[in-house]
Amino acid sequence: MVQAAEHNDPTDIKRASTSVPILDVLADRWSPRAWQDRPVEDEKLLRMFEAARWAASSGNEQSWRFLLARRHFDESWEDALACLVEGNREWAQAAPVLVLTAAATETRRGRPYKHAWHDLGLAMGNLSAQATAEGLHVHQMGGILPDEARRRFGVPDDFDIVTAVTIGYLGDPASLSERRRESELAPRSRRPLQETLFTGTWNTESPILK
Amino acid sequence: MVQAAEHNDPTDIKRASTSVPILDVLADRWSPRAWQDRPVEDEKLLRMFEAARWAASSGNEQSWRFLLARRHFDESWEDALACLVEGNREWAQAAPVLVLTAAATETRRGRPYKHAWHDLGLAMGNLSAQATAEGLHVHQMGGILPDEARRRFGVPDDFDIVTAVTIGYLGDPASLSERRRESELAPRSRRPLQETLFTGTWNTESPILK
Repeated sequence: MVQAAEHNDPTDIKRASTSVPILDVLADRWSPRAWQDRPVEDEKLLRMFEAARWAASSGNEQSWRFLLARRHFDESWEDALACLVEGNREWAQAAPVLVLTAAATETRRGRPYKHAWHDLGLAMGNLSAQATAEGLHVHQMGGILPDEARRRFGVPDDFDIVTAVTIGYLGDPASLSERRRESELAPRSRRPLQETLFTGTWNTESPILK
Repeated sequence: MVQAAEHNDPTDIKRASTSVPILDVLADRWSPRAWQDRPVEDEKLLRMFEAARWAASSGNEQSWRFLLARRHFDESWEDALACLVEGNREWAQAAPVLVLTAAATETRRGRPYKHAWHDLGLAMGNLSAQATAEGLHVHQMGGILPDEARRRFGVPDDFDIVTAVTIGYLGDPASLSERRRESELAPRSRRPLQETLFTGTWNTESPILK
């Protein structure tokens, strides 16, 4: 399902080594830094944002907003790129699609929207699953310059700028610097469920893990 | 894929009326309040938490932790239920599984973990997709009593308690109060993408929508 460059293909390395089987669109998702120089079809982007749109949210508040910039197609591409910290700009400039994500700070009734970032995460979980189904990859970044984004795109005060996201087809790790290449070809790792899923008391392993 | 009670089955009503097709595990997800009196298989729960485990997170910090309580199986079930606001307790008590979610407030290096709630949202997006694939439903709630949860489960200060979540098989809407039943049988709605996906400037509809 996942398309990749012909050489040094990290796809098998990056597939999650799960303790039990999970959906392919979840196991095959990972965050590359190397991208093919190939645009993403608008209809695929549309399906990804449509998937995001149908996420759950607190009181159906739908905290999420997105600023989309397609390289070679949207004039705002350079502006979007300028909102990343330098270390991310280095590799993200090769991606065909860049998105800035934002979350409402208030509910429609003007109360503090406590779960706004959480709910944006739910939407991005949907978007990522749909992207994987489309043969695409997504890399979400916290390393951004929110003030720059606010100024360049006129983001109002009642929205937080939360992440930047690259979207595209998986590229050849050889296009990356040595340090980046190593990380691009290293297996993914996660904290075990024994340290994550508790029952009764904090840090007490749940019986379903035994 | 989704199992439901025989009468008043909301499954078709609740399927997202998407503008373009998206993955079934995303379109079929919704948040019921009526539950079958039927336990959830441990292996299904395990696959759901395994799916959550492999989500993306800022610097691979994996903010998420979960407190799991199964009705009739875990003594902490009553404690978990006591952490919900009354309006949620009313219907959530019929669900076979209750989960409290938590997010780290600091990174492993002791810095503020700005994206902790967002990253928990990513994990919950995965969990929800896997649940739908398992024929289960999930209802996430912001309406909880975090102090109650902290006290009853010994949650340390460097974690926020973020949501409570019911998991189970879809039940008969007739089991709900009239007001709840109406909402259980109403179509889902979302803000259109035209008000969500921008390019160039805030509130400027993206060209991919035209």
